[in-house]
Amino acid sequence: MTLHAPYDPDNVFAKILRDEMPAVKVYEDDTSLAFMDVFPQSKGHTLVVPKHVTARNFLDMPPEKLGAYMLIVQKVATAVEAAFKPDGLIISQFNGAPAGQTVYHLHFHVLPRWENVPLVRHGTAGMADMGELEELAAKIRAKL
Amino acid sequence: MTLHAPYDPDNVFAKILRDEMPAVKVYEDDTSLAFMDVFPQSKGHTLVVPKHVTARNFLDMPPEKLGAYMLIVQKVATAVEAAFKPDGLIISQFNGAPAGQTVYHLHFHVLPRWENVPLVRHGTAGMADMGELEELAAKIRAKL
Repeated sequence: MTLHAPYDPDNVFAKILRDEMPAVKVYEDDTSLAFMDVFPQSKGHTLVVPKHVTARNFLDMPPEKLGAYMLIVQKVATAVEAAFKPDGLIISQFNGAPAGQTVYHLHFHVLPRWENVPLVRHGTAGMADMGELEELAAKIRAKL
Repeated sequence: MTLHAPYDPDNVFAKILRDEMPAVKVYEDDTSLAFMDVFPQSKGHTLVVPKHVTARNFLDMPPEKLGAYMLIVQKVATAVEAAFKPDGLIISQFNGAPAGQTVYHLHFHVLPRWENVPLVRHGTAGMADMGELEELAAKIRAKL
């Protein structure tokens, strides 16, 4: 049952947190790291992950660390909104594969929405161009 | 632009918070209220709203109140998971109509998912039976 499995320290986001894999970063402090989703569902799709935890999902997150992490989710969401002025913004978090989770380190999605622009289904468009992601990240960082 | 409109104190969730409208409640404390969504997208679909704020959305939420509220989102999510043992759980929050928001008081959705059971599109199935929602709420309350 994926909702209660042990944490796998070799998941992709753990590797990013250990600098063993690259990421297009937009924000980092002692509690959290935010970076561009490499399979963006819309322009500006950003992920925020907590540091120093072995939480597969939202249910696993130590309550005493949740508040500081969510403040960074809010801070990054505010900057994404300021950078791209989307018509809407989805904040979402998936627990377990049947809910849409594909990487088993807690992460919140910050997902801009535009009128009449459907979301890209996760992964169907292939990996984003790193140069384009870096340009988008620079726009978000400028609002942080 | 809906992401930056003023708060309307006559929104449905404000009325529920003032006890001017009914809701099938599962949890309440000084920071937050949780109740069953009357247009459930899956069995056990629960909403958590912050009290004593005039926040239309996640971006509007006073940062100093965000942590305590998110702890209740986590507490309710944990109880929903314990009550129904779904295969997955979506935590989501919509900002602006193009993102799916229909009520303009900040709320997080706690949405159980089951393998091979698609989500009901919001509102398409009509309003839920209140007796059935009460039975589901009792199961969640028993885990709180």
